[in-house]
Amino acid sequence: MARPPVIGIMGPGIGARPGDLDNAYRLARLIARAGWTLLTGGRNEGVMAAAHKGCAEEGGFSIGILPGKTAADAAPGMTVPIVTGLGSARNNVNVLTSNVIVACGAGLGTVSEIALALKAEKPVVLLACGPETHALFNKLAPHWAQPVDTPEQAFEAVRYKLAGMG
Amino acid sequence: MARPPVIGIMGPGIGARPGDLDNAYRLARLIARAGWTLLTGGRNEGVMAAAHKGCAEEGGFSIGILPGKTAADAAPGMTVPIVTGLGSARNNVNVLTSNVIVACGAGLGTVSEIALALKAEKPVVLLACGPETHALFNKLAPHWAQPVDTPEQAFEAVRYKLAGMG
Amino acid sequence: MARPPVIGIMGPGIGARPGDLDNAYRLARLIARAGWTLLTGGRNEGVMAAAHKGCAEEGGFSIGILPGKTAADAAPGMTVPIVTGLGSARNNVNVLTSNVIVACGAGLGTVSEIALALKAEKPVVLLACGPETHALFNKLAPHWAQPVDTPEQAFEAVRYKLAGMG
Amino acid sequence: MARPPVIGIMGPGIGARPGDLDNAYRLARLIARAGWTLLTGGRNEGVMAAAHKGCAEEGGFSIGILPGKTAADAAPGMTVPIVTGLGSARNNVNVLTSNVIVACGAGLGTVSEIALALKAEKPVVLLACGPETHALFNKLAPHWAQPVDTPEQAFEAVRYKLAGMG
Repeated sequence: MARPPVIGIMGPGIGARPGDLDNAYRLARLIARAGWTLLTGGRNEGVMAAAHKGCAEEGGFSIGILPGKTAADAAPGMTVPIVTGLGSARNNVNVLTSNVIVACGAGLGTVSEIALALKAEKPVVLLACGPETHALFNKLAPHWAQPVDTPEQAFEAVRYKLAGMG
Repeated sequence: MARPPVIGIMGPGIGARPGDLDNAYRLARLIARAGWTLLTGGRNEGVMAAAHKGCAEEGGFSIGILPGKTAADAAPGMTVPIVTGLGSARNNVNVLTSNVIVACGAGLGTVSEIALALKAEKPVVLLACGPETHALFNKLAPHWAQPVDTPEQAFEAVRYKLAGMG
Repeated sequence: MARPPVIGIMGPGIGARPGDLDNAYRLARLIARAGWTLLTGGRNEGVMAAAHKGCAEEGGFSIGILPGKTAADAAPGMTVPIVTGLGSARNNVNVLTSNVIVACGAGLGTVSEIALALKAEKPVVLLACGPETHALFNKLAPHWAQPVDTPEQAFEAVRYKLAGMG
Repeated sequence: MARPPVIGIMGPGIGARPGDLDNAYRLARLIARAGWTLLTGGRNEGVMAAAHKGCAEEGGFSIGILPGKTAADAAPGMTVPIVTGLGSARNNVNVLTSNVIVACGAGLGTVSEIALALKAEKPVVLLACGPETHALFNKLAPHWAQPVDTPEQAFEAVRYKLAGMG
């Protein structure tokens, strides 16, 4: 039997906007209901914490890829914290492990993950990331990063990309 | 609710002895039955493959921390492959993510993981690793690495160490 | 005696434009003449190769942080290749090791390095990176990434930032 | 012109014995006089600090591969600190970057580096590492790790291994 796909939700920690948190929470619920595995950067902040909360409320399965040397700052609700001790170098583990990446708002770490994901030829969905993010990545990798406005649209975009990988 | 503990089974890939494979398979079944999460280095070889097979047959949950850039060489039966692209630097992710490490036979990679685990002050169980392995690590970190002969003894040693972490 | 500062020149490999190569070559010569240490991603392609060529022609000192497991693809002329085996996770080593980062053209890897550098609070100079790159990073970290048009301007910007670190 | 070879001196930090410090200091002087590049784990402690001191006194060239996110704890005298932010995962960078590895005393980190070096098929010299270290690694990789007693013998062993790589 095939393993469930891993969907990475990337987004700002402390600097996340309320809309980013709501988007991450709602998208994570949809991911959990679909039976997919959620992956985030794992810390108990911003988009990461909101996503694990949404996933846990639906009984979903989730992985957090932590930058530190212990699981002390792991977001509640995740199934397994992966403790890397790699600092921001773990961002590349996030994208290599995910089948599809959804950027949920744009912080500096998120932008590094979008860039690393496109470099690794992973499909990327930009959920409310703003026109500047889309403009840059559409120039560097035309048509690979798809902008959407709502978690429902992000979910459909992920489903479509997964179908194309079959 | 507390997350289940993560138990890392480390051991040789290609060079594993038949006894190492049998030990890994049986210990992984015990780990799965206890409701704990299994972690290995993830490749479809030797001790890693035997452990994921045992865990899957009991319906257990398991993580493989892969060294390569894709999941192409992931052992069958694992729940989630973590794709690190780090080569042998991923050995430190293995030990930081595990609550207790069981070395199941001794190869060069395994010895690096025992050393990194003891350096990170993680409890280590040496399952049939031979007198040379015990002699060296007992000198470097007296009483931290516990030698045992059977998977059942390894399981009891892990349970005892987990109880002490309470 | 203080160590010389390390200046990272980041930029595209295969996709580099002729102007990027010329900028990297000329900036690396200026860095070498100043007695600073050059750092790049180390591969024998594009901006990396052009920078090491310029540095070597001035007898300068340079480091290449290679993503692979051997130094087989190291750019000629570098003083010491650092062999990481980390793949793109080595991008974070590039930025942490540099005192100032100059992006010389914008590829996906370069954009990940700009983002990681700003996240690590390193000063960044954008040398002919295009308006989209500046627009995004000026939004995410206002005034931290300074756009310039020529290698001479980049050199002056680096000198100014180093003076501010004194 | 060929680049100078990189010789890694690995050894304990805080737990180093006086003899280890003296060996590292003397071997580093010989490495510098030969025109080779010294590499260590970079921290201002034990064998690492002693090696950089010896190298600097001979005007030699040296690299320190630091585990932390800044160069604040770099040993004095090194030419270039490489700031990895990888924690103990940087041990694999140490061995991949070195052409020959000399273990100068045996701590847990050192043992992980010997194991990773042999796994990467790098020649290893064991300088006063004790019989337990030799016994284990000679079993795992017969004849690959050469035990010696003095820094002069270590230097000759390195020279012989480099000649064989020619």
